[in-house]
Amino acid sequence: MTNSLEDLRDALRRFAAARDWDTYHTPKNLVMALSGEVGELTDLFQWLTPEEAANAMRDEELAWNVRDELADVMHYLVRLADKLDVDLVEAAFAKIDRNERRFPTGDLRPVE
Amino acid sequence: MTNSLEDLRDALRRFAAARDWDTYHTPKNLVMALSGEVGELTDLFQWLTPEEAANAMRDEELAWNVRDELADVMHYLVRLADKLDVDLVEAAFAKIDRNERRFPTGDLRPVE
Amino acid sequence: MTNSLEDLRDALRRFAAARDWDTYHTPKNLVMALSGEVGELTDLFQWLTPEEAANAMRDEELAWNVRDELADVMHYLVRLADKLDVDLVEAAFAKIDRNERRFPTGDLRPVE
Amino acid sequence: MTNSLEDLRDALRRFAAARDWDTYHTPKNLVMALSGEVGELTDLFQWLTPEEAANAMRDEELAWNVRDELADVMHYLVRLADKLDVDLVEAAFAKIDRNERRFPTGDLRPVE
Repeated sequence: MTNSLEDLRDALRRFAAARDWDTYHTPKNLVMALSGEVGELTDLFQWLTPEEAANAMRDEELAWNVRDELADVMHYLVRLADKLDVDLVEAAFAKIDRNERRFPTGDLRPVE
Repeated sequence: MTNSLEDLRDALRRFAAARDWDTYHTPKNLVMALSGEVGELTDLFQWLTPEEAANAMRDEELAWNVRDELADVMHYLVRLADKLDVDLVEAAFAKIDRNERRFPTGDLRPVE
Repeated sequence: MTNSLEDLRDALRRFAAARDWDTYHTPKNLVMALSGEVGELTDLFQWLTPEEAANAMRDEELAWNVRDELADVMHYLVRLADKLDVDLVEAAFAKIDRNERRFPTGDLRPVE
Repeated sequence: MTNSLEDLRDALRRFAAARDWDTYHTPKNLVMALSGEVGELTDLFQWLTPEEAANAMRDEELAWNVRDELADVMHYLVRLADKLDVDLVEAAFAKIDRNERRFPTGDLRPVE
């Protein structure tokens, strides 16, 4: 019986409530916290060659740090979406639909 | 019947495969893409007062853009975790456990 | 007769003052704006191979965009430092001194 | 006799050369390093209220950290511009000229 994204959202709500952190968890602050954590994730990859980065999870210590930073990013993303009342999976699927039209199959390179 | 995070991961795999984008979707590139999308999300909130940011979803156009950028962030986070073989929900719950010990209830301010 | 960093700081002050933008240019907002612009700079490099990135300035359109985004990053960094009353060049030299001690010559890889 | 931006660029060149770090200092890696340092700067401001952020430099420890992170951001921005052969001050002034046309005086809010 595995945990779902809703379970995670609820656990993070309880965690923040138990510490009176909702005052700090405003959308503006959470966007900054998300950005800060992505910065820490970036730190782990910045000096690696593409090959080293592709093999990052074979290095036990680096793998642990990558999982730790991905978790932090996930925490703030889920908290932010919760505060903004956005369903992340639904929003992500809706965007796939729009991207299907923007990038018909056959395009050679991702464009943003 | 709602979609799960695994459904999203699979849909994004198919999307990338259909466009031969796996060459571009290396861990290093995906970390950068995630960071770029968080930058676009930040753009939406940077000039708002805390109050305006808290009411962002009442503005129809801004709400649409917020959902759109959150979706992009989610896409690259899920793709990155997939390429690194990390279960985001599991990693996030493991980090909650560590944070329970780092921040016993009663702390007044989030510290990172 | 070339412009200095102080000239740039003063020109950006005048630009903001003429538009009544100082209300928006708080340290917190400027940190977010800086982060957003670095995100746009990241966008330009994310899908490039290391070789393509190294030759970015040979592509006229990409070179123009790189200069444009570097300028935006510089604007917000200089504005932020101005609002915080930090001399960027002085702070950067002081950090070189600290880094000389942290990373004695002979280290093989940058560590952060 | 104060140091200029060119002196800083030269000092950073010598620092990297003495450690054989030029291999790591590719444009792609430096963009990531810049982004990581902006993330650390963001960390310092994320939980502060706008008022606390505006008074950040009155707190001695926070002020030290802000100067330290601004220095790191400056290091990587100057290194990146050097590797891309971009004159940051010249590019920033050219962008002010373009922005004068994009945002005629009288606009009430910065738009990006």
